[in-house]
Amino acid sequence: MTQDGLFLSFEGIDGSGKSTQARMLADRLRAEGREVVLTREPGGSPGAEEIRRLVLEGDPDRWSAECELLLFTAARRDHLERLIRPALARGATVICDRFADSTRMYQGLSRADLRAQVDALHDMMIGIEPDRTFLIDMDPETGLARALGRQGAEERFESFGAEMQARMRAGFLALAKEAPGRFRVIDGDRAAEAVAQDVWAALP
Amino acid sequence: MTQDGLFLSFEGIDGSGKSTQARMLADRLRAEGREVVLTREPGGSPGAEEIRRLVLEGDPDRWSAECELLLFTAARRDHLERLIRPALARGATVICDRFADSTRMYQGLSRADLRAQVDALHDMMIGIEPDRTFLIDMDPETGLARALGRQGAEERFESFGAEMQARMRAGFLALAKEAPGRFRVIDGDRAAEAVAQDVWAALP
Repeated sequence: MTQDGLFLSFEGIDGSGKSTQARMLADRLRAEGREVVLTREPGGSPGAEEIRRLVLEGDPDRWSAECELLLFTAARRDHLERLIRPALARGATVICDRFADSTRMYQGLSRADLRAQVDALHDMMIGIEPDRTFLIDMDPETGLARALGRQGAEERFESFGAEMQARMRAGFLALAKEAPGRFRVIDGDRAAEAVAQDVWAALP
Repeated sequence: MTQDGLFLSFEGIDGSGKSTQARMLADRLRAEGREVVLTREPGGSPGAEEIRRLVLEGDPDRWSAECELLLFTAARRDHLERLIRPALARGATVICDRFADSTRMYQGLSRADLRAQVDALHDMMIGIEPDRTFLIDMDPETGLARALGRQGAEERFESFGAEMQARMRAGFLALAKEAPGRFRVIDGDRAAEAVAQDVWAALP
């Protein structure tokens, strides 16, 4: 990868604690004096946030899987151009709460036949993978209970039941097996500090 | 093409009269009892119109060429799914004022290096060409004078000068040479009725 900074992503099912872990890692790196850009997908740049709203608001059936994939790829491209690449170019550490693996996992669940298109679009228009992806692994029942206990949990991405949570977990674990050099699977069903310690030890 | 209806597109520089010709052809086909769906791009379906607004409103530099390409492809995919394919499936004639050739021409002018991506995205996510494309060819100076005389000509797609009009005409003519079986180049610098007669004679 032709970049100076470090690109890290967090993935996991709803309630896995991935966003908490992303923040804790950002805090610890900043405390060491590093510049950290903490961001999230879908969204992360003004243009990408507008596309996020276009996709996630309104009738869930308003976009086909293919349209949604194109829109999310457009959002990711904007996020990459406006925020991620400039940050990496100046040597910052970019921590992204969800990245392309979430797209792969969600499309794999709803339209597994689209996987070839997902990969081809990624190669053509995004062309970057994180240096490390932390999969915060979590028992689906525990994750769901946590997610439902949170405010704002009614958003579309968070509105799945226990069975869907189990399928999402399996999807993420399958992706981790596909790219063992990039992924680290971290047991998220422990105190946040213990999880954070494992994340720290698994930095590239 | 696995469809019963007929898919026709009109292309041409601003002020070439392509929209007038599209309407005249629709009227004549309807007078013969055919169902005609007259539509336009970018846009043409509610979702595609929302994406059109996202791309064309605001700062012209807000989206890179790549993001714009992804967004227009998402819009075209929605237009195809919601309007064009259902109409063709029931045997209607679809007349589209601008289609993928406009994307190819505009991207070719601003970022010729993107042509491979434009074609790959089209093959992957759109995968259909009109049965016939009418290129209404027009002297750029004449076209520009006509376009500037129209109301609403301040929209972004219509805001180019004479030199740009000449480059757009050359771009369209080059596309017509690439696909001579599909394109018919019609001299647009005549009375609308005479042009319409040539369009009619060139139906597939």
